[in-house]
Amino acid sequence: MQGKMKALVKQIKGEGAEIQTVDIPKIEDNEVLVKVKAVSICGTDVHIYTWDAWSEGRIKNVPYVFGHEFSGEVVELGNKVKNVQIGDYVSAETHYVCGVCPQCLEGKAHVCKNTEILGVDRQGCFAEYVAIPETNIWKNPKDMPYEVASIQEPFGNAVHTVLSGEVAGRTVAVIGCGPIGVMAVGVAKAAGASQIIAFDLNDYRLDLAKKLGATTVVNSSNENPLEVISQLTNGNGVDVVCEMSGHPVAMDQAFKMVTNGGRISILSLPTKPVPLDITNDIVFKGVTVHGITGRVMYKTWKQVSELVSSGRVNLSDVITHTFPMDEFEKGFDLMIKGQCGKVVLLP
Amino acid sequence: MQGKMKALVKQIKGEGAEIQTVDIPKIEDNEVLVKVKAVSICGTDVHIYTWDAWSEGRIKNVPYVFGHEFSGEVVELGNKVKNVQIGDYVSAETHYVCGVCPQCLEGKAHVCKNTEILGVDRQGCFAEYVAIPETNIWKNPKDMPYEVASIQEPFGNAVHTVLSGEVAGRTVAVIGCGPIGVMAVGVAKAAGASQIIAFDLNDYRLDLAKKLGATTVVNSSNENPLEVISQLTNGNGVDVVCEMSGHPVAMDQAFKMVTNGGRISILSLPTKPVPLDITNDIVFKGVTVHGITGRVMYKTWKQVSELVSSGRVNLSDVITHTFPMDEFEKGFDLMIKGQCGKVVLLP
Amino acid sequence: MQGKMKALVKQIKGEGAEIQTVDIPKIEDNEVLVKVKAVSICGTDVHIYTWDAWSEGRIKNVPYVFGHEFSGEVVELGNKVKNVQIGDYVSAETHYVCGVCPQCLEGKAHVCKNTEILGVDRQGCFAEYVAIPETNIWKNPKDMPYEVASIQEPFGNAVHTVLSGEVAGRTVAVIGCGPIGVMAVGVAKAAGASQIIAFDLNDYRLDLAKKLGATTVVNSSNENPLEVISQLTNGNGVDVVCEMSGHPVAMDQAFKMVTNGGRISILSLPTKPVPLDITNDIVFKGVTVHGITGRVMYKTWKQVSELVSSGRVNLSDVITHTFPMDEFEKGFDLMIKGQCGKVVLLP
Amino acid sequence: MQGKMKALVKQIKGEGAEIQTVDIPKIEDNEVLVKVKAVSICGTDVHIYTWDAWSEGRIKNVPYVFGHEFSGEVVELGNKVKNVQIGDYVSAETHYVCGVCPQCLEGKAHVCKNTEILGVDRQGCFAEYVAIPETNIWKNPKDMPYEVASIQEPFGNAVHTVLSGEVAGRTVAVIGCGPIGVMAVGVAKAAGASQIIAFDLNDYRLDLAKKLGATTVVNSSNENPLEVISQLTNGNGVDVVCEMSGHPVAMDQAFKMVTNGGRISILSLPTKPVPLDITNDIVFKGVTVHGITGRVMYKTWKQVSELVSSGRVNLSDVITHTFPMDEFEKGFDLMIKGQCGKVVLLP
Repeated sequence: MQGKMKALVKQIKGEGAEIQTVDIPKIEDNEVLVKVKAVSICGTDVHIYTWDAWSEGRIKNVPYVFGHEFSGEVVELGNKVKNVQIGDYVSAETHYVCGVCPQCLEGKAHVCKNTEILGVDRQGCFAEYVAIPETNIWKNPKDMPYEVASIQEPFGNAVHTVLSGEVAGRTVAVIGCGPIGVMAVGVAKAAGASQIIAFDLNDYRLDLAKKLGATTVVNSSNENPLEVISQLTNGNGVDVVCEMSGHPVAMDQAFKMVTNGGRISILSLPTKPVPLDITNDIVFKGVTVHGITGRVMYKTWKQVSELVSSGRVNLSDVITHTFPMDEFEKGFDLMIKGQCGKVVLLP
Repeated sequence: MQGKMKALVKQIKGEGAEIQTVDIPKIEDNEVLVKVKAVSICGTDVHIYTWDAWSEGRIKNVPYVFGHEFSGEVVELGNKVKNVQIGDYVSAETHYVCGVCPQCLEGKAHVCKNTEILGVDRQGCFAEYVAIPETNIWKNPKDMPYEVASIQEPFGNAVHTVLSGEVAGRTVAVIGCGPIGVMAVGVAKAAGASQIIAFDLNDYRLDLAKKLGATTVVNSSNENPLEVISQLTNGNGVDVVCEMSGHPVAMDQAFKMVTNGGRISILSLPTKPVPLDITNDIVFKGVTVHGITGRVMYKTWKQVSELVSSGRVNLSDVITHTFPMDEFEKGFDLMIKGQCGKVVLLP
Repeated sequence: MQGKMKALVKQIKGEGAEIQTVDIPKIEDNEVLVKVKAVSICGTDVHIYTWDAWSEGRIKNVPYVFGHEFSGEVVELGNKVKNVQIGDYVSAETHYVCGVCPQCLEGKAHVCKNTEILGVDRQGCFAEYVAIPETNIWKNPKDMPYEVASIQEPFGNAVHTVLSGEVAGRTVAVIGCGPIGVMAVGVAKAAGASQIIAFDLNDYRLDLAKKLGATTVVNSSNENPLEVISQLTNGNGVDVVCEMSGHPVAMDQAFKMVTNGGRISILSLPTKPVPLDITNDIVFKGVTVHGITGRVMYKTWKQVSELVSSGRVNLSDVITHTFPMDEFEKGFDLMIKGQCGKVVLLP
Repeated sequence: MQGKMKALVKQIKGEGAEIQTVDIPKIEDNEVLVKVKAVSICGTDVHIYTWDAWSEGRIKNVPYVFGHEFSGEVVELGNKVKNVQIGDYVSAETHYVCGVCPQCLEGKAHVCKNTEILGVDRQGCFAEYVAIPETNIWKNPKDMPYEVASIQEPFGNAVHTVLSGEVAGRTVAVIGCGPIGVMAVGVAKAAGASQIIAFDLNDYRLDLAKKLGATTVVNSSNENPLEVISQLTNGNGVDVVCEMSGHPVAMDQAFKMVTNGGRISILSLPTKPVPLDITNDIVFKGVTVHGITGRVMYKTWKQVSELVSSGRVNLSDVITHTFPMDEFEKGFDLMIKGQCGKVVLLP
């Protein structure tokens, strides 16, 4: 398809972004063109928007279209595309992997060392159209609302984190109730956790966690997380900890609150090395720690799709704000202030 | 404690049972005496009551007190008992294991070859009092109703079956909706199954399965189970099958309806060898088959306790009838006719 | 590459095969052309050669080039090939999978329902050249002998079977010592089995099993397999059974000899349904049964490569005969008689 | 049994130990008395001997008999002992666990929070006799040399560490070649690792690692461990790291040398918190970290017994020195200098 489109462009190596008119992407033989119906704002997008230290080191080429969480409809097919049709409703796995490294060959493509990321290393989806390789396309049921479909990618992070071990009949702590933390609460609820204790410093987010199924919400500035866990578990500690805050104090608490033989799944990205008491908090406790990144390709996507389609997790509850893409500044402001769940933009 | 008590006694090697007055059991140093508050009737009890071929071969000594599913309150402690107190509310693991065989040493005591079973090999709980070794006692929260607490043991079978592999975001078939099948539906629901398709020939039981959370119920005499599964899974087959009927036709369907790479967990006890198409239904499909017996000691009990206490599974829904123990015949009749869920007797 | 080549062709729907001159395969954009250096004869090839009932039902188009186990050197690249070079030493995964079915998406491509097989559904490798899709190519180290490299594919079946559960410090039975059974013995040895008991009716094969590391070999026509296992395991039964014979009597013994809580991995293909005592041999024992087909793509290939390159399994020991391809009849005769390990042909 | 015996006693809260004559222990109903045939010196014993900060904080009552690794023969039985006989050759699990905490009930008794340890919290085995609860007794085959049998307990630590995940066909790094590290090399060898790269600063220990099967030994003061791993794995990193040094620099290297998706099993006990780059070394890599303590009760013991009895690991190679117990100072000196493998004392 030829022509121009409206897109949200990271225009300079500095703060901000702007709506521009750019070329509709040309697709390769193995790609499809998607008419974007809904996009959602990720924490990564906020980093790029505010242009923090991470962005300074990571983003090479500006101007470019950023954004990676979306849903839409296929409008054009590359010559070699076989399994996608015009009119399919789709989202996309945003990690483009090499397929030939040891990790990819072993079914661990989510930790491929040659990964490139949509909207970071490649032109993104904050636009009317986006080009996506066929192998990264995930088809959505036609009755799934576009807004919901657009947040399946970050929901996949939550699913990957929570379901990296046993949950049914287990007590689960979720530390950090940003959008993915809140969705992790929903996954733990759906998967049969007996207690779900959610921690944050922000009451708005804790209210969302409650809505998604937390059995206890704790504002860590008011209550001692370790004491709360001890009381709720008869002094045993919690079976599973999902660390989603990245804060060094919370990280330490994660290792202190988990019970002997328990599991800690870490999705968060602390900005500096964190001192851990390996002897007492890992070795003597016999804990298992899982580093979690991306989504298992494509096992996690199947779980996502089943949990959402079946209504086991109601993702609408997580979407607190929807704006036309032109009003992107409102969305980013809310994200920066933490006064929202997921924010969806409509191109 | 000395004295007499009322008990339901298997009095002859033939049909029936009768209420008799017998001695209150004397406890060993390592045992506790439990005042029984509620008992429930297991399919095994029905076999013994009707004195079928299995009972003829298995039950050695009559008269004896049968029954093994119960809840009660501890009223006396053996000299060596350390971790149970008078007044504790309890149920019991009914498998008495040797503790020293390779299976016991490896944490697989539920398949100990030297197992003896309460109410089968030893005096049971259809009585006012029962003696239980300390190591087999499971403590119940004080706010758990006795009726509910009494059916935790069979619920443990359901938990063991369903949770022997992944469930969250998976499609699950339950074949056979006797009480344990119905409870398996509840476990699958609690654990996040995206679809739960329940099969039986008995509409009463299918209604119960619906109540516990089945998303589709199928009377296999009216509909072709394989066609139903095919339709509900886009021709892929179901991810998990819990076989709880023991019927050879259903067993064959279990292996036909499971998807490639899926899991079949078998709790049922077919009375004769069943021909299986190993080549097409196991090998080429790459399925995993789990034989399930008893409860993992005591991991399953912890899962049971958490799922029930947290309300994730509402076991009250499974208890359809409660009678005074004197009216045991009503209970056994309902069980024989299949017009019930769990039947509870009150001594 | 244009021109003619010599190939072993299944020329009619009946017994036999013949050397013919045929066109060198034309490669697609995503394929590479391999100069074949060594091929080995699989049991499947023997079925096709002797044209048994299975072949009659399965093989659609004759004449065609059969054979699927090979090694060779890449001599031509399709236009879209990225990760293979001219001169690479290679073998191939012989299952061509769809990549888009639920199994493929979940990392279980070896049970893809749309699988096509080299030398069965497509032109095979009993020839001077073979065309292979890039995604199915497995690169070999340059110092691996061609004969050894050609049998990695069936060795992968053995690796997949044995390593589908724990082996180190476990007792392992291998039933059926055809070439894959013999290789399974080698895998069990490499992976730390404490005992490896191999069963067959053929002393030639049992000698090979001994060579690969069996600690006990049993001719099942002379000794009772169940008694042997009982003696060697103090009556406990064996921890792991690899069933590779497909014989119904042996299959039943497999389920009888395994210990409570043990594992049975079945790679064999019984020609008829086999009656199994599910109650006593699966449920009460709490065993796990794994159906094994193909190789996990490509985890198994990595294990294969590491075990062979490191010398942990010496595959040369399994290759008992090597012939020029023209003398293929000698090879097939030996396979039919069971007087060989792997037979390698040199085109 | 009444009378006196010779024992190695930790006599003061300060450096050293001395041979004294003390009472033979009286056994409880559930205990057996063992005539000690061989004991071995653990790093823990060295801590107690030299009276470091850890000992100061941990050891409550002196004088007492220390030591916990032993083998011997049963000479007396408590009244309630059922499964041990006079004349049995035995060793012991040295963790005395409560049996009723959540961890014990779930089959994770090795992380029981109420654990007491032989020779630390209770009278130990550096003596002619030791009293052991029946449940902690492990029976040895009569043909296992006493010296070898005495080091099964620390060998169990090595087995637990290495076999906490897949090993066959994997590359394994062992960091720290004290006696347990050296035994870990032997386990990795037995379990089919394709490469075993051992690191230490002490050439004596590296020679032992070589003897036990290391394919590469690296003195980390001479070579850069990360470069060595990179070269040996084509830049991919190692699949499995067993961290047994406790040194903060080595710990950091452990997380740097592991490949994406790999496993780090930590048995070591760093004396201070260690800063970890969680973002880059755990999360983005998607690694799994296992804290390892003790031995899985009693699965690990079975693996130990099978690996030693079958000759898959030759523990004699690890025993470098044997002394009469009176010459204990020679043994402790060697341990302090690191010029030994396991040191065995004969009471």
